[in-house]
Amino acid sequence: MDMYELIHLKKSGQALNDTDWAWLVDEYVAGRIPDYQMAAFLMAVCFRGMTEAETIALTRRMQYSGDCLDLSAIHGVKSDKHSTGGVGDKTTLVVAPLAAALGLKVAKMSGRGLGHTGGTVDKLESIPGFCSELEPRRFEQQVNAIGLAVIAQSGHLVPADKKLYALRDVTDTVDSLPLIASSIMSKKLAAGADTIVLDVKCGNGAFMKDPADALKLARLMVRLGHAAGRPTTAFLTAMDRPLGWAIGNAVEVQEAIAALQNRGPADLTRLSLGLAAEMLRLAKLVIAPADPDRMNQPQAPADPAACLRQARAALKSGAAWQRFRQLIQAQGGDLAYLEQPQRLLSQAKRQIVTAPEDGWFDWIDTEGVGLAAKALGAGRSQLGEALDPTAGIILKAKPGMAVRQGQPLAELLTSSPGRLTEAQDRLLACCHFIPLAAATEPVAAGAATAQLPLFLASVRADGQAESLPANYPENEVSL
Amino acid sequence: MDMYELIHLKKSGQALNDTDWAWLVDEYVAGRIPDYQMAAFLMAVCFRGMTEAETIALTRRMQYSGDCLDLSAIHGVKSDKHSTGGVGDKTTLVVAPLAAALGLKVAKMSGRGLGHTGGTVDKLESIPGFCSELEPRRFEQQVNAIGLAVIAQSGHLVPADKKLYALRDVTDTVDSLPLIASSIMSKKLAAGADTIVLDVKCGNGAFMKDPADALKLARLMVRLGHAAGRPTTAFLTAMDRPLGWAIGNAVEVQEAIAALQNRGPADLTRLSLGLAAEMLRLAKLVIAPADPDRMNQPQAPADPAACLRQARAALKSGAAWQRFRQLIQAQGGDLAYLEQPQRLLSQAKRQIVTAPEDGWFDWIDTEGVGLAAKALGAGRSQLGEALDPTAGIILKAKPGMAVRQGQPLAELLTSSPGRLTEAQDRLLACCHFIPLAAATEPVAAGAATAQLPLFLASVRADGQAESLPANYPENEVSL
Repeated sequence: MDMYELIHLKKSGQALNDTDWAWLVDEYVAGRIPDYQMAAFLMAVCFRGMTEAETIALTRRMQYSGDCLDLSAIHGVKSDKHSTGGVGDKTTLVVAPLAAALGLKVAKMSGRGLGHTGGTVDKLESIPGFCSELEPRRFEQQVNAIGLAVIAQSGHLVPADKKLYALRDVTDTVDSLPLIASSIMSKKLAAGADTIVLDVKCGNGAFMKDPADALKLARLMVRLGHAAGRPTTAFLTAMDRPLGWAIGNAVEVQEAIAALQNRGPADLTRLSLGLAAEMLRLAKLVIAPADPDRMNQPQAPADPAACLRQARAALKSGAAWQRFRQLIQAQGGDLAYLEQPQRLLSQAKRQIVTAPEDGWFDWIDTEGVGLAAKALGAGRSQLGEALDPTAGIILKAKPGMAVRQGQPLAELLTSSPGRLTEAQDRLLACCHFIPLAAATEPVAAGAATAQLPLFLASVRADGQAESLPANYPENEVSL
Repeated sequence: MDMYELIHLKKSGQALNDTDWAWLVDEYVAGRIPDYQMAAFLMAVCFRGMTEAETIALTRRMQYSGDCLDLSAIHGVKSDKHSTGGVGDKTTLVVAPLAAALGLKVAKMSGRGLGHTGGTVDKLESIPGFCSELEPRRFEQQVNAIGLAVIAQSGHLVPADKKLYALRDVTDTVDSLPLIASSIMSKKLAAGADTIVLDVKCGNGAFMKDPADALKLARLMVRLGHAAGRPTTAFLTAMDRPLGWAIGNAVEVQEAIAALQNRGPADLTRLSLGLAAEMLRLAKLVIAPADPDRMNQPQAPADPAACLRQARAALKSGAAWQRFRQLIQAQGGDLAYLEQPQRLLSQAKRQIVTAPEDGWFDWIDTEGVGLAAKALGAGRSQLGEALDPTAGIILKAKPGMAVRQGQPLAELLTSSPGRLTEAQDRLLACCHFIPLAAATEPVAAGAATAQLPLFLASVRADGQAESLPANYPENEVSL
């Protein structure tokens, strides 16, 4: 085998076979393929694509390129949930305890964030005392005892992806669907859960701006999950505005607590319920497969509406909130902050950003809002950088609303007041208003808000997408 | 400026501007762009191509990336000739003295070969005593005195190309027309000649297998030459069989001497006359441009037929042969070997390869013949490797001939007899015969020889190709 030949195969539009992919992954991880050959290969992949069989072969070899988690000591169905990343996406903080309250086992390994805000682990660490490093045995024991644990991702999980991603990042070869799908799914599969629910974000704050691309990615990832024998569902959900009102670390924990106490923003609550309900539905399939082929049927017998009712009940009853408290306590967090989450932000300098004029809030540059939060200190540019846990943005207005001059648009929080001016400028540049008169005739104006529905589509076992009907329960639920 | 941005521009199909190309070349030569980013960029170029303006900008910056030869101390018109490389291509050995005999100045810098056989310098060095390293002043003096000199290429001529080519070679990014054209022309332009005649080889023994691709390359290189103010012509010529009968180093010198003495093979003689005549025609344009715009006119006033008559006369009279003797003498070669060139091969072990059966010699794998010569020791795989000057092949039959079983097909020469078996196997595998009966009805058999004409086309000032008529003088000349 010879890397030059594999570059040539891919460049000329041919498919590599399983042996080729295995060799390529192993040799690259071992440092025997130079980065310049891999970079040329990856660029050829961007132009030529990969077949589904190639994507499965790559994903499988990446999955086994380092440690794989063995969750066999954990009883019950191990359920994982993954988001492709968005602005204000604190869903895991709500979904994980909700799923645990439904009887699922959530043994969650989560990356530290590299982007607008921190990852789930960073957000949880804004709670004083919370520890995200657990020994494997304690991790298992905790999941068996309370149904969930959240730890930082092991350094040796899928090293192939770590090395490939670092190269893709500097050679403009990130935006290839099969490479994205194999990167995500190799890590999910190595993390060992029995079932996977994917939240594929879509819109101007997501990596996938275009719903058609997001749908292709969702289909591919669902097929990769099923090819590895793990029931997988993907939802396409809206990221053309931030999720909820809070963007940051402690501010997102505060908002997640509100959602767990049945007083959170509607979009966060609906999304969390939908994801948890699907986790439950997949678990039921795994537990009782009366017909072994059933897993691959598009019409799964577990009733989604019933699962959703169960999820709603677990939230309403406070069971999810109790699980969250147990999680924080088990991992050393100070419960006093959960009772008074505003204390998480007591040290923050605050500044209100107001609307510069009257207008209709037409659309928001969601990614830009994330970057404004990063400018306040909520995100990091390089792994290992420290975050400011109190830094963040609490929006006071969102697209689809009329605003008056001087009305608050957002509150900025940071422990470095010197950062407020840049963040304010950035945030204001992200908010796009049109005259109120034009907004009264939105069609004529051709510019008024047309937001994406929260749930755009779901992709289940057979890889076929299903447009969710307007009466999809999550779009109706009111708490 | 940022290499990531330039990769992204090219990947998305946009053109880089002159400043971008200058930055890219300078930073890469300075070692400030990592190979992995350049490799990704080059692969994107393979898929997206380059505009003519981009190719001009790249060529220009590469041309000036290191030393440029200053030939101003040489009187008269400095004429260069370049071949894209073929098997048995000893044309420079004939054309250079012929052009000098016509009054042109040939200050030739030639690379050492990396491939089937050596380069022009390697071939000349098979003459005992010949020295290809001359101090610049002596180089100039020699060209002024006798009209020609041939030296090895300076290490610091176009370092950008040296570095880029090494990377392209291992990342399968060689086969991009703009990259090939800029690589060749940057070196030609840096070598300082006033006019350039290009011999673009085409066929199964050339880099360009397909005449359509060869024509595109020829057009592009002619435009690059004119964009730099150097009158340039390209000929497309046949390389679907070796040129002449000899492939190697000393054996090619021997054949070139025969051609200079009016007893060489017809194809070598015709090609040399055609190239020298065009060099003369371009020189006449440079010397007396009554109308400054004339250079760019497709119908150049200098009469090609008259130039060809002059070239033929210089060959017939022995003037070209005398120039060759002067060249060898001036650079220290032993003239005794020129009088008895068979002495160059006196140490060689020889072996005759015979036809395995009766048949019609239908076609030859020309590149394979080159590799057979390399297997005898005539070529090198790595720069710096020593060549066996006596190694080579003298063909005794060519496609388009009937052969009888046992009839000699070729003579193999080497100073390492252990290499003969492999070379014989290789050579026989290159010769393709069909039954004589099928050859009598070539159209019905659908396989009989259809050789390319020696001159396929010419591309002159305006970049438009001209198919050469069947009565093109070189195709008629007989000596």
